[in-house]
Amino acid sequence: MSDSGGEIEGFWAVVPAGGSGTRLWPLSRAGSPKFLYDLTGTGRSLLQGTVDRLAPLSGERLMVVTGGLHAEAAREQLPDLGEDDLIVEPSPRDSMPAIGLAAAILERRDPEAVLGSFAADHVIRDDEGFRECVRQAVAVARTGKLVTLGIEPTHASTGFGYIQIGKELEVEGAPDARGVQAFVEKPDGVTAQRYLESGEYRWNAGMFVVGAADLLDMLARYQPVMANYLRSIAANPLRLNELWPRLTKIAIDPAIAEPAAVDGRVAVVPGTFDWDDVGDYASLASLVVEAEGTPGVKVLGEPDLVVMQDATGFVAPQSGRTVVALGLDDVVVVDTEDAVLVTTQERAQDVKKIVERLKLSGREYLT
Amino acid sequence: MSDSGGEIEGFWAVVPAGGSGTRLWPLSRAGSPKFLYDLTGTGRSLLQGTVDRLAPLSGERLMVVTGGLHAEAAREQLPDLGEDDLIVEPSPRDSMPAIGLAAAILERRDPEAVLGSFAADHVIRDDEGFRECVRQAVAVARTGKLVTLGIEPTHASTGFGYIQIGKELEVEGAPDARGVQAFVEKPDGVTAQRYLESGEYRWNAGMFVVGAADLLDMLARYQPVMANYLRSIAANPLRLNELWPRLTKIAIDPAIAEPAAVDGRVAVVPGTFDWDDVGDYASLASLVVEAEGTPGVKVLGEPDLVVMQDATGFVAPQSGRTVVALGLDDVVVVDTEDAVLVTTQERAQDVKKIVERLKLSGREYLT
Repeated sequence: MSDSGGEIEGFWAVVPAGGSGTRLWPLSRAGSPKFLYDLTGTGRSLLQGTVDRLAPLSGERLMVVTGGLHAEAAREQLPDLGEDDLIVEPSPRDSMPAIGLAAAILERRDPEAVLGSFAADHVIRDDEGFRECVRQAVAVARTGKLVTLGIEPTHASTGFGYIQIGKELEVEGAPDARGVQAFVEKPDGVTAQRYLESGEYRWNAGMFVVGAADLLDMLARYQPVMANYLRSIAANPLRLNELWPRLTKIAIDPAIAEPAAVDGRVAVVPGTFDWDDVGDYASLASLVVEAEGTPGVKVLGEPDLVVMQDATGFVAPQSGRTVVALGLDDVVVVDTEDAVLVTTQERAQDVKKIVERLKLSGREYLT
Repeated sequence: MSDSGGEIEGFWAVVPAGGSGTRLWPLSRAGSPKFLYDLTGTGRSLLQGTVDRLAPLSGERLMVVTGGLHAEAAREQLPDLGEDDLIVEPSPRDSMPAIGLAAAILERRDPEAVLGSFAADHVIRDDEGFRECVRQAVAVARTGKLVTLGIEPTHASTGFGYIQIGKELEVEGAPDARGVQAFVEKPDGVTAQRYLESGEYRWNAGMFVVGAADLLDMLARYQPVMANYLRSIAANPLRLNELWPRLTKIAIDPAIAEPAAVDGRVAVVPGTFDWDDVGDYASLASLVVEAEGTPGVKVLGEPDLVVMQDATGFVAPQSGRTVVALGLDDVVVVDTEDAVLVTTQERAQDVKKIVERLKLSGREYLT
């Protein structure tokens, strides 16, 4: 797919910027999460990259939802963000309240608004393919459906949920749109392999496109209390801090996508663009380009700070110090101002255990 | 052996403090070599430990030979060192010129002086056993011999030279003294095993005890030009910088110990004390005590700065940063202000290659 059209009238980009990315510790911290960093060496943070990718579709219609700790950084990184377009959550309550509040506010501004929600910490390089997919999703959303983007699996991942695609839909401007049979949980290895081979499953990247009013209507059906509170806050933003703690902490998938799929109100536009949630160092390493002449070595930072002798792997020299690895394969070395992590790509998933351990041992200041 | 007597009249401790310890990079640097550091957590540097160990034998009769870069640090660490007892080499010329110059100076002060030369960067914990061995060596040296201390091998090391011991000597006050059959080079593994099993070989730790005048006489025989220059410098220290560059760069073993052994002028006192030259991180790790409750983990520094998750090995947190290792066995992590080294104990010997590589790539400032 390649994207041709210009801005989409009435389309709003909503970017939830949350999550501390504990598996990318010590690069990512609670106080400075991964979305604020240029993790791929493009010169733009993941948050900025997400906004850049959407701007050709949404123009200035951008809304960012983030925590109080990151509001200032988000403003700095996005100087064009409108004064009323940054929502600061009083506390983290998962994705449904965050996206739902954005939808409730947009519904008041423009009852016809269609929003697309895209997490601030994902990496996509085929921006054009992504935009063409969103364009189709907006066309489908205008028919009243909740539309998810389905990522074509490149391997039998057990780390993501899957979307089982259904029959073709007849929607003008959305030739690839399909129904959704079901959302399925992270599978085991055998099941994931079966999903991959069948061609009938897509990765669920948590990217949704939906009319703001439609989303609130679905919410009114499946989470009526939350729908009420969110509309109350949108009508009277002074009530945000009062009502927010009463909102159920829940992700958008179980809150509305899964029940709406059962009710036949969810569609999927399968995308062919690349996608990565940069969940851990193995994933991050796969996104970093090998420097010339150093096969098997990925450096996130200044290559001159890294010396690899009979060693391969991923090194992030982020403190200005020289990092030397000798005689280790698939090693991961992350050097920051106050902490050094040494592990292997194989153990990348377990970095979150380190963060838990640091908290339990009274070293929360490092996390 | 346990040491009983007091100071030995006329015995001088000579401590060559040289070598940059490249296999202990980045802890040890050209500008701050390992002998200046407390590598074993005793609160004293290796240099201070060496001097402390000898003081009960030599009292204030101590001479230190070091390079210009380290003269100030040596003075600071050894405030009691006599004004005339620090020899600053104009350039590194290996151990023979260093020890020879000390001997030439001592010969003028006291023709009967016996000196013992002990490198500043070795670790011995059985100080009493060491002193008893030196005491016997001094008794043998007074018979005109060059006496070496022979370390009892604890394993079939291929990293040290060996001394093949000969027949018993009849020297009063030195019941353990033996002749020396030969000095032998670092052996291969099979040969080292044979040496170990035979019981007839000792490690050559480069520790010599000899009359100052006897050493100069031997030198006059095997390296006559050097003997002349050294005696000239001792007679007129102003000539040091003029004559020093003309001295052959050679270690004491090939210069005099090996030929003197052939001539039957070398003896050995086999010691039973422990000894380690702290040659690399595997060796250093073996000297550091495991913290309680963390089997397989050796920390040189503040234990609270180290988090090991399914990991064993040696960690030196020397910059104040927290070091985390996850899922690696026998890892070596050395964290300093400007460089981090990550390797394995198995590759400890190859750290010197890193130093060469840093120099070749224009990063000598790190070495």
